Amino acid sequence: MKQWERNIRKVVPYVPGEQPNKKDMVKLNTNENPYPPAPGVEQVLRGFDADMLRLYPDPTVKLLVEELAGFYSLSKDQVFVGVGSDDVLAIAFLTFFNSERPILFPDITYSFYPVWSDLYRIPYETQPLDQNFRIIKEDYYKENGGIVIANPNAPTSIYEELSVLEDIIQHNQDSIVIIDEAYVDFAGASATQLIGKYENLLVVQTFSKSRSMAGMRIGYAMGNPVLIKAMNDVKYSFNSYTMNQTSILAGVEAVKDVAYFERCRNNIIKTREKAVSTLRELGFTFPQSGANFIFATHMLIPAKEIFEELRNNNIYVRYFNLPRINNYLRITIGTDEEMERLFVFLHQFIRNYSK
Amino acid sequence: MKQWERNIRKVVPYVPGEQPNKKDMVKLNTNENPYPPAPGVEQVLRGFDADMLRLYPDPTVKLLVEELAGFYSLSKDQVFVGVGSDDVLAIAFLTFFNSERPILFPDITYSFYPVWSDLYRIPYETQPLDQNFRIIKEDYYKENGGIVIANPNAPTSIYEELSVLEDIIQHNQDSIVIIDEAYVDFAGASATQLIGKYENLLVVQTFSKSRSMAGMRIGYAMGNPVLIKAMNDVKYSFNSYTMNQTSILAGVEAVKDVAYFERCRNNIIKTREKAVSTLRELGFTFPQSGANFIFATHMLIPAKEIFEELRNNNIYVRYFNLPRINNYLRITIGTDEEMERLFVFLHQFIRNYSK
Repeated sequence: MKQWERNIRKVVPYVPGEQPNKKDMVKLNTNENPYPPAPGVEQVLRGFDADMLRLYPDPTVKLLVEELAGFYSLSKDQVFVGVGSDDVLAIAFLTFFNSERPILFPDITYSFYPVWSDLYRIPYETQPLDQNFRIIKEDYYKENGGIVIANPNAPTSIYEELSVLEDIIQHNQDSIVIIDEAYVDFAGASATQLIGKYENLLVVQTFSKSRSMAGMRIGYAMGNPVLIKAMNDVKYSFNSYTMNQTSILAGVEAVKDVAYFERCRNNIIKTREKAVSTLRELGFTFPQSGANFIFATHMLIPAKEIFEELRNNNIYVRYFNLPRINNYLRITIGTDEEMERLFVFLHQFIRNYSK
Repeated sequence: MKQWERNIRKVVPYVPGEQPNKKDMVKLNTNENPYPPAPGVEQVLRGFDADMLRLYPDPTVKLLVEELAGFYSLSKDQVFVGVGSDDVLAIAFLTFFNSERPILFPDITYSFYPVWSDLYRIPYETQPLDQNFRIIKEDYYKENGGIVIANPNAPTSIYEELSVLEDIIQHNQDSIVIIDEAYVDFAGASATQLIGKYENLLVVQTFSKSRSMAGMRIGYAMGNPVLIKAMNDVKYSFNSYTMNQTSILAGVEAVKDVAYFERCRNNIIKTREKAVSTLRELGFTFPQSGANFIFATHMLIPAKEIFEELRNNNIYVRYFNLPRINNYLRITIGTDEEMERLFVFLHQFIRNYSK
C-alpha cells in the first residue's frame, strides 16, 4: 500500500439507499412525496432566463430566506437556508457543538447524527428510546454539549408533543437544542412557535418531504438571530455559494403556494389514515404515525421476508437490519393507487403465508 | 456570555465578495463569464418535467459523470462531481490530507486552501512565490502531507507549463497532488493528460468560468479510480444527495455543446489579448495571463485609488488588501463593450491624474 493510500480518510462504507427506476414499480422506500411540486415551480423553470446562470448566486439566499420568514412569521435574520437539511444539520453541528461534553440524541433516530459527530470529532452519547420507541425526557437532563431530536422521529414516525420538547429545551439552557422537523408538516405543532421563547432552540426543516422537492435539495434552519448569524459566518467562511439559482427561485414558488402545499399534505394524511386501518386488518402493528410513512411490524411474518417478497414484486419499502428495529418495515405513504397495489399484494401474500 | 455562546465555532469573519447588482454597471470583479451558458441549458430548463423534483436525485450523478468522462476521454470511474469546485476541493482535502505532515501550497493563491485546512485540522505550510509570482518547484521537493497548486494561479493569472507540474508530481509520489484548474481553459494544456501516468494526481475543474455557469454550482475532479472512489465514499458517508436535478441535466447540456464552449472561450481570449495591449498603453504592467482576468499594477497610481475611483463610476474590479499584492487589481475579462467602457474611463482618469 502506498503512502498516499494510507492517508485516505477511513469512512464506514455506505451505499446510498436503493433508488430503483423501473417501469411500473411502486416506490415507497425513501419517504418522497407522491405529488409534484407546486405548479409555480415548473413555471419558474420554464420561464428561466439562463443568462443569469453565468453570475454567482446570491450567497445570502435573500429571496428564499424572506419568503420563508414570511411564511413562518419570523424575521429574515431568523432563517438560514442550505442544500437540503443534511447540509443544514451538518453546518449546525459544526457551528454549535464545540464542547468537550458529549452531545445527546436517541439510540434509534436519523442515521447521520453519529456520522457528522465523527466527521467533526464531536463526542456523543445515545439515549435509548423506551420499549415503545418513545423519548424518555429525563435522559436529557444531564450535562451535555448539545442535543438533537428528530420530531417526528425517523424511522419510528412518532411525534412527541411540544410540551415534551419544551421541557427538554428548558432543562438545557446552556446547550443548543436542535429539533429536526423533516416530517412535522404531517404531524402537529412545530417547535418554531417556541423560537421567541428559547434562544437556545434551532428548528430544522426541509423541502424534500411535504414540499415535494427532494430533487432540488433545499433545507432550512430557524432560530434566534445569534444562532443564524453564527451558522452563516461558518458557512461563508468555507463555502459561500452553495444554493444554485434554480433552487432559490423554485424554492420561493413552492413556499408561496400555501393552498397547494396544504392540499397535498392533507391528501397524504388522509391516505395515511386509510393505510392505518388496512395495515391493521392485515395483522400489522405500528406506532401512531406523525410522518409520511408508517413503521410497521407484522404479528406473524418477519419483516425481512415481507420486504424481499415485496421487492421481488416491484414494490419497494425500506428495511433496516439494525438492533431493535430489524423486524420493522418503513412504508412511505404514496398515492391511494400505489397503496392499493401494496395492500392487494400484502393481502394475498399473507393469506398464502398462513397456509 | 452564555455557555452555548461560548461553544459557537470561532471563524474568521468573512464577508462574501461584493455582488453589486446595479443598472448599467460593468461587473469585472468575480471572474464570471460575460456570455450566457450553452443554449441547450436554457432549453433543458424550459422543458423541465417538475414532477421529477419530488424524487431524490441520483447520488452518483451518473449522467453528468458520463458526459464529462466522454469529453475528457476518461472512464466514468475517473470522474467525481460536486457542488462547485469549492465543494469538490473541500471533499478532496478531507479525503486525502490525513497525515501529520503539513500540506504545501503557495503563499499567494486561492484563499480557501488555508480555510479548509483549518476546518479539517490539516497542518499546512505556504511556499513563497518568487518576486515575479512564479512557483519555485524545488520548494515542493520535501516531506509533506499533500500538495495543492492552482494552475493558472489566482489571483496572479499565471499559467505554469505542464512540465513544471509534472516535476512536482513526480517528486511527490507518496502524496496526493491536487491541480486546481478553474481557469485552465483560458490557458494551455490541462494536467488531465497526466492522469494515466500518475496515480497520485487529482485535477479539479469547474463550470463557473469557461462554461458560464457560476450560478449553477458544478465542479468536478478527475484522477485514478482509487482516488475517485475514496472521494465518493467520503461524500456518501456524510451527505449523499447534493447535486440537484436541474444542475445535473443542465450540466450535461453545457458539456455536450463543444462548439459553443470553444467559441466563448476563444472570444474571451481574443478580448483578453486586446486588453493586454490597451492596459500596457495605459501604463499598467502584469504577468502574462492564462486566465479570464488580468492581474495588473499601474506604474504611477496606487491600485487602491484606481479601484475606488472605478467603483465610484459603476465599474467593479477586485482589489485585495493583502501583503505582496496590495498594489494590484484583478480585472475580469468581460465583453468587448464592457472592456471599452473600462478603458475609456481609465484613459481619462489617468490623463487627469498626471496633471
